[in-house]
Amino acid sequence: MAAPVITLTTDFGARDPYVASMKGVLRGLCPAAMIDDLSHAIPPRDIREAALFLEAAVPHYPPGSIHIAVVDPGVGGTRRALAVRAGGQILVGPDNGVLSLAWGDEPEARALENATLFRHPVSRTFHGRDVFAPVAGHLANGLAFDAVGPPVADPAAWRIPEPVAVGGGWRGEIIHIDHYGNCVTNLPQDLARAGAVLVAGGARVPLLGIYADAAPGAALALVGSTGRIEFSVREGDAAGRYGLSRGVEVTLLNCANVE
Amino acid sequence: MAAPVITLTTDFGARDPYVASMKGVLRGLCPAAMIDDLSHAIPPRDIREAALFLEAAVPHYPPGSIHIAVVDPGVGGTRRALAVRAGGQILVGPDNGVLSLAWGDEPEARALENATLFRHPVSRTFHGRDVFAPVAGHLANGLAFDAVGPPVADPAAWRIPEPVAVGGGWRGEIIHIDHYGNCVTNLPQDLARAGAVLVAGGARVPLLGIYADAAPGAALALVGSTGRIEFSVREGDAAGRYGLSRGVEVTLLNCANVE
Amino acid sequence: MAAPVITLTTDFGARDPYVASMKGVLRGLCPAAMIDDLSHAIPPRDIREAALFLEAAVPHYPPGSIHIAVVDPGVGGTRRALAVRAGGQILVGPDNGVLSLAWGDEPEARALENATLFRHPVSRTFHGRDVFAPVAGHLANGLAFDAVGPPVADPAAWRIPEPVAVGGGWRGEIIHIDHYGNCVTNLPQDLARAGAVLVAGGARVPLLGIYADAAPGAALALVGSTGRIEFSVREGDAAGRYGLSRGVEVTLLNCANVE
Repeated sequence: MAAPVITLTTDFGARDPYVASMKGVLRGLCPAAMIDDLSHAIPPRDIREAALFLEAAVPHYPPGSIHIAVVDPGVGGTRRALAVRAGGQILVGPDNGVLSLAWGDEPEARALENATLFRHPVSRTFHGRDVFAPVAGHLANGLAFDAVGPPVADPAAWRIPEPVAVGGGWRGEIIHIDHYGNCVTNLPQDLARAGAVLVAGGARVPLLGIYADAAPGAALALVGSTGRIEFSVREGDAAGRYGLSRGVEVTLLNCANVE
Repeated sequence: MAAPVITLTTDFGARDPYVASMKGVLRGLCPAAMIDDLSHAIPPRDIREAALFLEAAVPHYPPGSIHIAVVDPGVGGTRRALAVRAGGQILVGPDNGVLSLAWGDEPEARALENATLFRHPVSRTFHGRDVFAPVAGHLANGLAFDAVGPPVADPAAWRIPEPVAVGGGWRGEIIHIDHYGNCVTNLPQDLARAGAVLVAGGARVPLLGIYADAAPGAALALVGSTGRIEFSVREGDAAGRYGLSRGVEVTLLNCANVE
Repeated sequence: MAAPVITLTTDFGARDPYVASMKGVLRGLCPAAMIDDLSHAIPPRDIREAALFLEAAVPHYPPGSIHIAVVDPGVGGTRRALAVRAGGQILVGPDNGVLSLAWGDEPEARALENATLFRHPVSRTFHGRDVFAPVAGHLANGLAFDAVGPPVADPAAWRIPEPVAVGGGWRGEIIHIDHYGNCVTNLPQDLARAGAVLVAGGARVPLLGIYADAAPGAALALVGSTGRIEFSVREGDAAGRYGLSRGVEVTLLNCANVE
């Protein structure tokens, strides 16, 4: 049988012992697991960034994988802790929306209330180590999903804002700036038409197929790897050059002479 | 039998081939090992940060784990190289204090003098690759601990400064600023009393149980996940807002009206 | 049989789901693989940094390892995709020079043209996920090397500039600034003579054996762990202090009184 796969996505950064402590707990419980760091560079407390991250990453993993996500500003308070089964995979984390873009249409959510699975004493500020990692480790060892706690009918969900139809096209917004400065919008690729133009931050750029369709240093729009339209600069930093950030409005004009 | 576990903690950063070179050496020697990156973001040459990091992380690992730590400004000089057995685990690194908070009360230390275990020629600037990784790899393969070299009676140790009793409480200091800006002090949780107040950087804040006990954006003190009292801001950056850094004095007043 | 080893070197950074997506694809194809992150902090589009990185890291890995490198500004365009067998290991990445310092003298290169190995649909902006990772996963599963596509006789190569003999020594340049601010030059260690002096950025420093041969805070030259002469400051940041960057000229004077 293949080794269990457990992934880690957090806003813990790289300097502190938080990630290492979780890995230690996982190694102790489930020595056979393959443990993958997905990212520990989610901006502090940024639930939306983490949700988008998991939406893009999780579907590439094989069935049976277990994904722990810890972006948890409400730790120790009244927010529930969840395990969610969806698409053959399991997500584990706080009930604050962080898991909600990754679980698709039919999530099977349970509250982590079986405290016999936890590491004790449970820290009031670090459930990653004392709740989420132990539960994930037990699940990786074959614990029945239902054993973690009772069903939850209304897990907290965050949804990406929907584009709005406007004359000749669609109005949307930037939902993520990536490492290169590419600006990912909420406009899905099926809204794109040949000859379309994207307006963002005062720039008007053509929707092209690949970076190399633009001149080096020129701005363009294209369909990015997660299936959304992006505003980019070939071999450059679009967000930096045009002063763009998350939430900035963009407009896709499918008929170039309409505005 | 469970796969051997080897962890890596360094100040090497992410851009250079130093970590990769160590992993390659380990894969060559011990293909079955699970290799965990703990952190490569220890500030350059910051032995104390690394010692605190290992103190927090190592105890979560299962017996038999091997932890390599390389923060090694004295590489190539006269400092010894160590393997230390403590608490059922093994630590490998330079004899400069970096391992000393993780080894507890009864360390069994040996000097790495069995050069047949090293990678040759041994670089004078990179013992991580040529000394520490090879020795760890051999230990992971089952080499007897005593085979690495002779016992060391006086390994270099660094100790966290002790809090000092003052009228109505304790004087301590900030020993670590974490990724969120939380300021970890040297005040252990057993000094905390209900109703206590922490004074730091001109602020006077109540000792509470969890972040959510403070208003969003308000400062508070709480017991952090490593069992020490921390100065924090709920959903904010305490160090940034109050200009705090490592070494800054703090005072815990267990009787709030005493100063 | 030992588990397959697959490594990842990219300019993807830590915040985005790109690395995670590649790991997911690899876990799905080859659950038994050990997956090592080498670096995801190669500067964006910096093919030379990545080539130097792989030159230093790859040789430490055991035969049979598979190394994926994705620094790929020409993704989606006309650049070929490669698998290269060299020194008993396999390199997978774009045909833009990124692999060329790691493949040594007798590379056996093939173009990735067997599209049955790819993930479909193939994104036009993310071949790391849809081409390189799937091909690497199949190779890790034992796919014959020749099955990836036809031989390539002229893979794109980048070469480190050669030092030039000048009166009394050699003129070279800085090819890499490391995390500590050490300035790695293109001068190989066999050019070094006892008593030599390195001139860089207005400073004239002695070639010594180890950092500790200089006073704390003093500048020196030494032979670094990759066998090249470096300009350094003991316990300090040489690049920052002397304003040095990649491409800056340096001179090695083997006879100290010649200039």
